[in-house]
Amino acid sequence: MKNFENVSVIKQANIYFEGKVTSRTVLFNDGSRKTLGIMLPGDYEFGTAAAEVMEMLAGEMAVLLPGQSEWRTYKSGEQFEVPANSKFKLKVNTVVDYCCSYIE
Amino acid sequence: MKNFENVSVIKQANIYFEGKVTSRTVLFNDGSRKTLGIMLPGDYEFGTAAAEVMEMLAGEMAVLLPGQSEWRTYKSGEQFEVPANSKFKLKVNTVVDYCCSYIE
Repeated sequence: MKNFENVSVIKQANIYFEGKVTSRTVLFNDGSRKTLGIMLPGDYEFGTAAAEVMEMLAGEMAVLLPGQSEWRTYKSGEQFEVPANSKFKLKVNTVVDYCCSYIE
Repeated sequence: MKNFENVSVIKQANIYFEGKVTSRTVLFNDGSRKTLGIMLPGDYEFGTAAAEVMEMLAGEMAVLLPGQSEWRTYKSGEQFEVPANSKFKLKVNTVVDYCCSYIE
């Protein structure tokens, strides 16, 4: 699916880490939401509220998921899940374009 | 208008200047399009094809419009127009969140 059709988009961006991580929120008719985001190179830690599915649209990064001891690299076309109420770490080496789906 | 309702969004981001300028394209039912974008601090020059209206959603930047000799600063809540087929320069000092409307 190249486009999200028949959705609402919140104009204002979500801005984190002085703009090195930013996203736009997309709202679907079924009440679900996703964010489309960009991460510039850097090391980040994020916390989840809802569980998340992170789909890589471009770029590559290493991810340390909660409860894991080894970093794993994900690249364009791949995805990973993060449990609700958890923390995960990222090492971003190239510009990453991603889509995050919230599982609520 | 805080949200764009009943639109399509192209999943893949538009990425310029090694990710320091990125945007998402929003398509409207009347055939018009806008981009929602982020610019990180830096000096940029852009060229237009269609005329553009740039609306500042957050942040502040100095703009040198085509045919002008003086830079003018625009901040959140302000907007400016750029003619078709022209070039304009930006000096971005803070993270800028913007909405660009294409006049076609």
